[in-house]
Amino acid sequence: MGAIKRIGILTGGGDCPGLNAVIRAVTRSAHGAGMEVVGIMEGFGGLVNGLWRLLDEKDVTGILPRGGTILGTSNRDNPFNYCVRYEGDQPIFEDCSEVALENLEKMGVEALVVVGGDGSLHIALGLSDRGARVVGVPKTIDNDVGGTDVTFGFDSAVITATEAIDKLHTTAESHHRVMVLEVMGRNSGWIALMAGMAGGGDVILIPEIPFTFVGIAASISERRERGKRFSIIVVAEGAVLPGGEPVSRVSAAGTTILGGVGEVVAREVEARASLETRVTVLGHLQRGGSPSPFDRNLATRFGVKAVELILDGKFGMMTSLRTPDIGHVPIAEAVAARKTVPPDGDLVSTARAVGTSFGD
Amino acid sequence: MGAIKRIGILTGGGDCPGLNAVIRAVTRSAHGAGMEVVGIMEGFGGLVNGLWRLLDEKDVTGILPRGGTILGTSNRDNPFNYCVRYEGDQPIFEDCSEVALENLEKMGVEALVVVGGDGSLHIALGLSDRGARVVGVPKTIDNDVGGTDVTFGFDSAVITATEAIDKLHTTAESHHRVMVLEVMGRNSGWIALMAGMAGGGDVILIPEIPFTFVGIAASISERRERGKRFSIIVVAEGAVLPGGEPVSRVSAAGTTILGGVGEVVAREVEARASLETRVTVLGHLQRGGSPSPFDRNLATRFGVKAVELILDGKFGMMTSLRTPDIGHVPIAEAVAARKTVPPDGDLVSTARAVGTSFGD
Amino acid sequence: MGAIKRIGILTGGGDCPGLNAVIRAVTRSAHGAGMEVVGIMEGFGGLVNGLWRLLDEKDVTGILPRGGTILGTSNRDNPFNYCVRYEGDQPIFEDCSEVALENLEKMGVEALVVVGGDGSLHIALGLSDRGARVVGVPKTIDNDVGGTDVTFGFDSAVITATEAIDKLHTTAESHHRVMVLEVMGRNSGWIALMAGMAGGGDVILIPEIPFTFVGIAASISERRERGKRFSIIVVAEGAVLPGGEPVSRVSAAGTTILGGVGEVVAREVEARASLETRVTVLGHLQRGGSPSPFDRNLATRFGVKAVELILDGKFGMMTSLRTPDIGHVPIAEAVAARKTVPPDGDLVSTARAVGTSFGD
Amino acid sequence: MGAIKRIGILTGGGDCPGLNAVIRAVTRSAHGAGMEVVGIMEGFGGLVNGLWRLLDEKDVTGILPRGGTILGTSNRDNPFNYCVRYEGDQPIFEDCSEVALENLEKMGVEALVVVGGDGSLHIALGLSDRGARVVGVPKTIDNDVGGTDVTFGFDSAVITATEAIDKLHTTAESHHRVMVLEVMGRNSGWIALMAGMAGGGDVILIPEIPFTFVGIAASISERRERGKRFSIIVVAEGAVLPGGEPVSRVSAAGTTILGGVGEVVAREVEARASLETRVTVLGHLQRGGSPSPFDRNLATRFGVKAVELILDGKFGMMTSLRTPDIGHVPIAEAVAARKTVPPDGDLVSTARAVGTSFGD
Repeated sequence: MGAIKRIGILTGGGDCPGLNAVIRAVTRSAHGAGMEVVGIMEGFGGLVNGLWRLLDEKDVTGILPRGGTILGTSNRDNPFNYCVRYEGDQPIFEDCSEVALENLEKMGVEALVVVGGDGSLHIALGLSDRGARVVGVPKTIDNDVGGTDVTFGFDSAVITATEAIDKLHTTAESHHRVMVLEVMGRNSGWIALMAGMAGGGDVILIPEIPFTFVGIAASISERRERGKRFSIIVVAEGAVLPGGEPVSRVSAAGTTILGGVGEVVAREVEARASLETRVTVLGHLQRGGSPSPFDRNLATRFGVKAVELILDGKFGMMTSLRTPDIGHVPIAEAVAARKTVPPDGDLVSTARAVGTSFGD
Repeated sequence: MGAIKRIGILTGGGDCPGLNAVIRAVTRSAHGAGMEVVGIMEGFGGLVNGLWRLLDEKDVTGILPRGGTILGTSNRDNPFNYCVRYEGDQPIFEDCSEVALENLEKMGVEALVVVGGDGSLHIALGLSDRGARVVGVPKTIDNDVGGTDVTFGFDSAVITATEAIDKLHTTAESHHRVMVLEVMGRNSGWIALMAGMAGGGDVILIPEIPFTFVGIAASISERRERGKRFSIIVVAEGAVLPGGEPVSRVSAAGTTILGGVGEVVAREVEARASLETRVTVLGHLQRGGSPSPFDRNLATRFGVKAVELILDGKFGMMTSLRTPDIGHVPIAEAVAARKTVPPDGDLVSTARAVGTSFGD
Repeated sequence: MGAIKRIGILTGGGDCPGLNAVIRAVTRSAHGAGMEVVGIMEGFGGLVNGLWRLLDEKDVTGILPRGGTILGTSNRDNPFNYCVRYEGDQPIFEDCSEVALENLEKMGVEALVVVGGDGSLHIALGLSDRGARVVGVPKTIDNDVGGTDVTFGFDSAVITATEAIDKLHTTAESHHRVMVLEVMGRNSGWIALMAGMAGGGDVILIPEIPFTFVGIAASISERRERGKRFSIIVVAEGAVLPGGEPVSRVSAAGTTILGGVGEVVAREVEARASLETRVTVLGHLQRGGSPSPFDRNLATRFGVKAVELILDGKFGMMTSLRTPDIGHVPIAEAVAARKTVPPDGDLVSTARAVGTSFGD
Repeated sequence: MGAIKRIGILTGGGDCPGLNAVIRAVTRSAHGAGMEVVGIMEGFGGLVNGLWRLLDEKDVTGILPRGGTILGTSNRDNPFNYCVRYEGDQPIFEDCSEVALENLEKMGVEALVVVGGDGSLHIALGLSDRGARVVGVPKTIDNDVGGTDVTFGFDSAVITATEAIDKLHTTAESHHRVMVLEVMGRNSGWIALMAGMAGGGDVILIPEIPFTFVGIAASISERRERGKRFSIIVVAEGAVLPGGEPVSRVSAAGTTILGGVGEVVAREVEARASLETRVTVLGHLQRGGSPSPFDRNLATRFGVKAVELILDGKFGMMTSLRTPDIGHVPIAEAVAARKTVPPDGDLVSTARAVGTSFGD
């Protein structure tokens, strides 16, 4: 094989601050190495459907500070389970990864950079197994991808969530209320923990440490005894009760409560602690906005590293931060295990030392 | 009557960026005029219960940029309907405004500054009618108090809501989605309108202009025809259907949908426009955080004016912004009518001219 | 004359948050009225040099929250004093407004929207006098244009300056220092006054109220006696000594000090008050960044109004905010007098009432 | 020796976002371990002068998000060179560390936490050598302290500098100008490098990579050839010419230019590239404001760790981040060498790969 002349890049999964910084870095450093860059639109769906265009310098000028992705993305499009065939009225989704591979060839793409989270990296691995030359760049605001100290997007999400806690503090204090903030984190509590610590949250509920309503109420009572008549509760959407029971099934008075875990926690606390309680669900605000400088720089370093991996022929690899260095790990290794908060680790014990309760 | 030696100040109703700036301005300018200032804690509840302390310079140093209120506030405590008597198990709330008036005398407060919204100003008027010397300072993030161009708190709330729309734009564009943002405004659409215009919202739903689901769907379709595959919908919590029917009663498929108007709109749009839709409810984030410079200055001007009104013996009056001047109006006149968005006014027609739909 | 089919727009003078919002509003509402819009590049220089292109919807999509101007601008290009002829080595600048007028005709532009400050509006008036159909939109971060309550850009500049004061407070307090912040305002003190009040500046120096170094030192001493060992001084670049003497000519010890007024004030204060003093010059940061929601909305309203003025044949007019309405005034009237801070007005007396010194 | 009953804490050197978070964390976790905490005011000066007070929970409530230090600090007070004796008119500064040690004993302080940068840590080491039980917490916005991945304050400073670059971009683009931003970094280029990369700076000048004016001009010309008519130059205050010659000695036309390196660079570029150039000096804005979530969390972890080191009897040690863990290193080791940007490292080569010039 001769020198690679054209590479492709796609962004998959939920949008995340820093995606554009990766696209810019990949494009510029590939151009600097004499390669062309094909932007594949709308994630893996666009790969199957053949949506693409050549990226030039003008496309990536000015995108560094912008959230989102100029390539578009899609959450659910998996080439291994995508093409539709009908049996009667019933749609059957089938593997059409062959089409994806053919399209890469049609585009003249000799190596592909896949920027994505757990799901996208699994697909990248599948394409790699079928012969595609793929390099991965990890992306998740949840920080639950293994094989790297951290991914871009996480710092920005923590900043957004911390600003929200800062804002809720004024209402909580002025009204002697309990304010509940629900943040992202279905499987891991990183955002809740880091934003909760940074915002001075009084109770932090995360999937890794099951909580009880009795535990929360005890913390709030204990605060009240010390003269603090308000509390801030930060809860990850995936917080669970002992035994891993999901919160949304539980009810205050025997009936089922609709709404997310934040709503449930708020109603229980109100009932048990006789304090007015309000809930805020941050939702997609955590994905939006201009990436933080940390995320812009990490994304830029990952992008440049991805091109280096291609030039070095290190396919099937994912870029990785091993502070202070950028390195690489096999994609297979990175996706093998989600990264979760160690319940007995230094971060949790630090939070406890400054007075935070985990409701346990 | 001789010169006034001691005045009181209380903050009532929901917290709002700028309250501390008023407290600082009242305290400093009263001190400058040789008067003492009593801070009454926790709104009208504290007035009845006799919670107060003298404010000195140290109390108000450094509070200008801080949200909330150092005096605390309460939402529902109305002296005219506050003291509890039981008939059997049944609590009966009775007028104890007499206690409030007695407490003012005990504190030596010769004139009272009430900082509050519609509800608090009504109470202030009641106390005034019973002989108290009261001056009002209007406060509402909703901007629905009459008699003044605008109140402090509103600009800060619009900034928070606009930043949220800016953040949602990146997700909307990257995913070709409809993003719904529910903002405050039970009776008026000011926040939705001004933040919606500032954020480039595609559809804005406000109480003053009833909308239909057909109207929203038409706007989204029309955008799609022009190649725009995402939309931002900003909806005030008090948005209504034709005939003033509240939105939360309506259901997508014959069943009742729980959740606020944002949730209902999102589900209907998803069903009608076949576009993925996500909803964010801003909630109390709109009340929090450091006040904007505009709000800090307006609050400071109101505070200084309130002390002037006392010195001039103009009781029963409320401070008022008549750009560029600060003046005063009778409290009775200000609370007589809520200020709502004129549906045929210049603001709405401007929004329409740049392509915004009101779903009508 | 029949209906106007094509209008032009140019942005002149220093850049300012909100220019893009005007361009978007003019383009969209003109399109809505069936007219084409020509964007003239790089201000009046581009008008003489014939730099222009048709603006379509895609050009103005997504520009609402962006600072700067997509059309470019120029500070000094005046068609009445622009074309160069040489006498020997000496360049002579001559009137070539004729070329500007001819270019408008070549472009097919039947009416021109000029967005600019004092200088640009004077040029607009000159072109109007020579027969061009011109409508003005006032723009200045300094807020010194007459005929309107306020212009867009000012609120954003005040926010940037206030954030700077908020930041300087932490260093001032921690170190018992005097921190000097120099802000824009060559002829008027609006930014210094409004940001100074909002940030709790202890001393505010503006062109409208001459100050003395003795006056500043007295304020700082008086603060120290009250136990406050730090001070924040906010100074407009055009602040003057009694008799209107510019500050930069004055020296601490008989020698000339280079640098702006902030530097001079800092050195004098350090010498007289024996307090460590640091100076920060905000400079162009005040022009940059995303416009505030207030500025985006005012700019949008001005843009829509400008098109209305064209449709109504009201040429030679400038858009104007008369809170809460948008109206218009003759450009000639607006540029006749700069708007300055009334030294005995309500704003200055309010600032004094909360303890601010003007160094006088 | 029995269990320690009372510890002290002081903050030395320039103020830095995160100091209050350390004070809060030390106080809370010491209280949790049954120890009292003495806050020594105004750095080492306060230690010699005996300024201190016991810290209780109320002192540290609400300080987590605040910049500065509630204890105050001083830049230059070194007990080893502090007490003044006069020989005639000549002040002689003498070692009075003995007084500092005696004061610790008077306060009943059995172990001291010193939060500071290079200078303060050297003093801590000196006191440790004379028998005091000292633990260090590194603090510097410059990121030049060795022995730890990073210190708190740096991330906040980079955010402030990056926001400034984002703002300058709009003016640069609108006016086709060169904008120069001077940031902190006398001995190391970390802030300039990380903010410059995050903000998309075109030229970054740092002490570790000597630059030439020819080099800068070449980069700007090369950009112009690619159609980019503006440039952003980010320059550390300690940037040097080849041979380590300081920039401020150099002049454009044979004369000496006053002002910092930013000013000199701007004038040279203007002269060589015939482009309008503007300079902004960020100064103390980089030290101010609310700490970023990252800095709040790192500061909290350092504070808790410092108390652990005391409980474990590990004196003479400094807390340290070894991602993802918090550990400790001998203070002596940490202060032995400043941490500077590796000129041939991964960060610099990444910046070059995306098109950044270092003017070399």
